[in-house]
Amino acid sequence: MAKEITSREQDYSQWYNDLVLKGGLADYSAVRGCMVIKPYGYALWENMRDQLDRMFKETGHVNAYFPLFIPKSFLSKEAAHVEGFAKECAVVTHYRLKNDPDGGGVIVDPEAKLEEELIVRPTSETIIWNTYKDWVQSYRDLPLLINQWANVVRWEMRTRLFLRTAEFLWQEGHTAHATRQEAVDETIQMLNVYATFVEEYMAVPVIKGVKTESERFAGAEDTYCIEALMQDGKALQAGTSHFLGQNFAKAFDVKFLSKENKLEHVWATSWGVSTRLVGALVMAHSDDDGLVMPPRIAPLQVVIVPIYKGDEEKGLIENRVAVLVRELKDLGIRVKFDNNENNRPGWKFAEHELKGVPVRVAIGARDLKNNVAEIARRDTKEKMTVPLEGLAFYIEALLEEIQLHLYNRAKIYRDAHITSADTWDEFRKVLEEKGGFISAHWDGTAETEASIKEATKATIRCIPLNNEPEQGVCVFSGKPSYQRVLFAQAY
Amino acid sequence: MAKEITSREQDYSQWYNDLVLKGGLADYSAVRGCMVIKPYGYALWENMRDQLDRMFKETGHVNAYFPLFIPKSFLSKEAAHVEGFAKECAVVTHYRLKNDPDGGGVIVDPEAKLEEELIVRPTSETIIWNTYKDWVQSYRDLPLLINQWANVVRWEMRTRLFLRTAEFLWQEGHTAHATRQEAVDETIQMLNVYATFVEEYMAVPVIKGVKTESERFAGAEDTYCIEALMQDGKALQAGTSHFLGQNFAKAFDVKFLSKENKLEHVWATSWGVSTRLVGALVMAHSDDDGLVMPPRIAPLQVVIVPIYKGDEEKGLIENRVAVLVRELKDLGIRVKFDNNENNRPGWKFAEHELKGVPVRVAIGARDLKNNVAEIARRDTKEKMTVPLEGLAFYIEALLEEIQLHLYNRAKIYRDAHITSADTWDEFRKVLEEKGGFISAHWDGTAETEASIKEATKATIRCIPLNNEPEQGVCVFSGKPSYQRVLFAQAY
Repeated sequence: MAKEITSREQDYSQWYNDLVLKGGLADYSAVRGCMVIKPYGYALWENMRDQLDRMFKETGHVNAYFPLFIPKSFLSKEAAHVEGFAKECAVVTHYRLKNDPDGGGVIVDPEAKLEEELIVRPTSETIIWNTYKDWVQSYRDLPLLINQWANVVRWEMRTRLFLRTAEFLWQEGHTAHATRQEAVDETIQMLNVYATFVEEYMAVPVIKGVKTESERFAGAEDTYCIEALMQDGKALQAGTSHFLGQNFAKAFDVKFLSKENKLEHVWATSWGVSTRLVGALVMAHSDDDGLVMPPRIAPLQVVIVPIYKGDEEKGLIENRVAVLVRELKDLGIRVKFDNNENNRPGWKFAEHELKGVPVRVAIGARDLKNNVAEIARRDTKEKMTVPLEGLAFYIEALLEEIQLHLYNRAKIYRDAHITSADTWDEFRKVLEEKGGFISAHWDGTAETEASIKEATKATIRCIPLNNEPEQGVCVFSGKPSYQRVLFAQAY
Repeated sequence: MAKEITSREQDYSQWYNDLVLKGGLADYSAVRGCMVIKPYGYALWENMRDQLDRMFKETGHVNAYFPLFIPKSFLSKEAAHVEGFAKECAVVTHYRLKNDPDGGGVIVDPEAKLEEELIVRPTSETIIWNTYKDWVQSYRDLPLLINQWANVVRWEMRTRLFLRTAEFLWQEGHTAHATRQEAVDETIQMLNVYATFVEEYMAVPVIKGVKTESERFAGAEDTYCIEALMQDGKALQAGTSHFLGQNFAKAFDVKFLSKENKLEHVWATSWGVSTRLVGALVMAHSDDDGLVMPPRIAPLQVVIVPIYKGDEEKGLIENRVAVLVRELKDLGIRVKFDNNENNRPGWKFAEHELKGVPVRVAIGARDLKNNVAEIARRDTKEKMTVPLEGLAFYIEALLEEIQLHLYNRAKIYRDAHITSADTWDEFRKVLEEKGGFISAHWDGTAETEASIKEATKATIRCIPLNNEPEQGVCVFSGKPSYQRVLFAQAY
């Protein structure tokens, strides 16, 4: 009955798909490039969303909701933005279907053509700044600290479950400020919120940095990002926070009367993370037996499997487990008693392993007699026999230990995969043989960046925020450089 | 500074719009028929959503997410469904824009035409049942108890903020069952969940009933509903729960192997409520001074306004208020200390009244000396002087009292507006002079129903579930009838 998972070594990409599909996170849909997020995957996303939402609210943000559709002309208003986003959009051209007079089901009613086409939002800067125009008159109306949880659509040609889908779920923060400094501070604050969330809740270490001009968000003055490393040595951009300067305020004519009674353009930021984080989580921690969920956001933290023969043993175990379940719930732990009689314990063990439940408790009749239970950790596969007395507190501590262990394990791997390269030969060798981040000098030109990308598929993931200045020569062009940047192949 | 609200008597419809716009719930957008849900309105929706979500989970449901787009051909698969939904849809025909070679901004790329058009979901039965086909093989896979929180689009010609918008937010439950009885029970269970939510949290009394065939959901065997009454005497459908029989299982070929080893079609339900509930809430309780929020779902339950002269008074009041705020928060009460120095107390009073905050606390220097505060109830406008000692508990009890009072007030009004009519003259007279629900005999035919609608705009809102059988004659046709049904003009 156990579901076959392709090993990482055999086929990393198939391993990932197996985990997502067989682990019950998502499914393909009938619509090209769109996925179905299954209940287990959605529960994971809900935990991520709820924690992020708390962090946004703690930093003074409120939620709102803006239209799904954007008039086509809005996209053209910010020059860089249209270049970046107009290409890959779902376009609504009609608003009615009708019965096919020739009996072929329903057809698009040619008379119901929209005067101006509507774009399904690929991101909402344009529709939101068009709205902010009406909300901002004076410095008293600022800052606007607004976030939106929404679906967006980008017509990607090559899609992968969670990592790159035509439709995805995300949050997009859009803030408006009276000064440049306040907007820059906000951009950095939200980058830090993302880094804290990904590290402390997803147990995935990240590097905070700023993008080069070529990798910047279309319409931004600066794009800050957090970059994570996956087990195949590829990087994954886990979140971005953009300082938009006055670009959108100018494009949509959003001005305010300052304290000094002068009419000025508003300063902007935007920042987002998406269901892509689910893919990052899967690839950061899982193994060849299945998913591995970090306890703090695991949909299910503990599963309890009874092992018995006959109704008497069953009854005794159930009574004792009921106490344990209550104790765990009182501690705020998400626990399930898996007493489904259709499946045997061995099947359940494999299933919960596949789904990555952090802690498994097995209790048999003899355990009960000895007042113990068998505890299995998903992360290390370790098994321990633990007294039932005080077990809930033991599990509570164990969950924290697992959370830390996952983070440390990922961090050791990540740190071991940041390699300095000082020559082009070294650069290529590291990329081919080891992967991961390469810390190398770059001459600062978009041409060199493009050449390296063409030659190796590696891009500049970021210029780390904590970079030390260092004199050197560009690994590709040999021209002078004053700092190292991080290269990697990426998702 | 106080914002002008049109009175109900003067223009009910304008009163409603004033409340929504000036109360900060929503705004018009640049896209026809789509609204912007502003932070205060979204916070209200979040409270509704979170409570409903808890109730869904307590009754065994899980959340998932299905694609925004539905292939056009799917809509045609269920005969009644296509009739009901194909008419008013947003249709995606292209997936790319390009720069206008003539320099006119961006245009739709004619080469990026979809082979099959995609419909922006007006409701998700078709895409979901097409997915369930792959998820259900055996009775062991049933029931599927899945809910989705999502945006949907119906291209309505006449729109009103919250009540009828082209895009709206909602939840749609879609469940699959092994037996007819189980599906019927689920349909009724969810109707009861809705009724409990609307009555206990929104403080709006509802009538539970079943729709006539003409008013049924397209594709359902039975549509159950909850109907509420607004202050202008019009009814508003606040939620529906549909028993879909095997219609969608047959249309999408979803079969399962039963315990008896027979291949059978699955039984289905679907049920939904939407942001329309916000409109219902506004119209049920508000008055000519602004919104009136029921405490249990109010974004803000208590606002505290300091009244002082000079920094010394200010400091003293702030110190005491800090204690009160902590006490209130410890009780789980949503409170705001409005110490914004840009606005005067009188302006704040008007603003919080407009926004419908249930309890206002005002504290001045003399109050502080006397160890009291002035409490104002939004629902009755009553003001009381209350000791600071124990004030948090006093407010906690007061919030519950306001909640009950709002419900009782709305129920007294509603009950007084269910009028029996036994003749056609009576029927028309009640409708014209009094409004509300009319309890009248109906001959059970769609023709009569249509004639009454044409003559009066009144529709059969429902056949109440607690109906007593009663012999009579149809108020319109004079033909025999065995029960009364509820008519009303409706939103």
